[in-house]
Amino acid sequence: MSEENIVYIGNKPVMNYVLAVVTQMNGGVPSVMLKARGRAISRAVDVAEIVRNRFITDAEVGAIDISTEEVSNMEGSNSNVSAIEIQLSK
Amino acid sequence: MSEENIVYIGNKPVMNYVLAVVTQMNGGVPSVMLKARGRAISRAVDVAEIVRNRFITDAEVGAIDISTEEVSNMEGSNSNVSAIEIQLSK
Repeated sequence: MSEENIVYIGNKPVMNYVLAVVTQMNGGVPSVMLKARGRAISRAVDVAEIVRNRFITDAEVGAIDISTEEVSNMEGSNSNVSAIEIQLSK
Repeated sequence: MSEENIVYIGNKPVMNYVLAVVTQMNGGVPSVMLKARGRAISRAVDVAEIVRNRFITDAEVGAIDISTEEVSNMEGSNSNVSAIEIQLSK
């Protein structure tokens, strides 16, 4: 991903991630990939919607992919968690 | 949506919705649309992933759309909430 930056969505407030995306796109990055897992998936959708509705109105949501990732917890066992990737381009 | 059934994802356990989707698809419905808003968005992704990984392995995730919906709360004011639609077909 040369021209494309990735923003990982975690548990911080939504506007932190919105600001990260807006800063990148206004700085000349044409396409940003939002990635999130588990409960942060809802927040990733919020970020995409807020960016394109309020800040960069010519941004478009491109491909949205969902998948399952295996994560190890602290007890050493594995569990599955859902993940999402949302592409935002302008 | 004649051939297509909609399953609204809310706050019940994930497996309730998985069962609803699996029942429909095994009953001959070729395409099911999952719809969710707000925090239930993560659960909708879980449902789609569990259905296609564990129960109906020839099911495919089709179009995924995200949007913003305006909802009225009990005080009478409006707020925006993100929404997702995930199409599952076999």
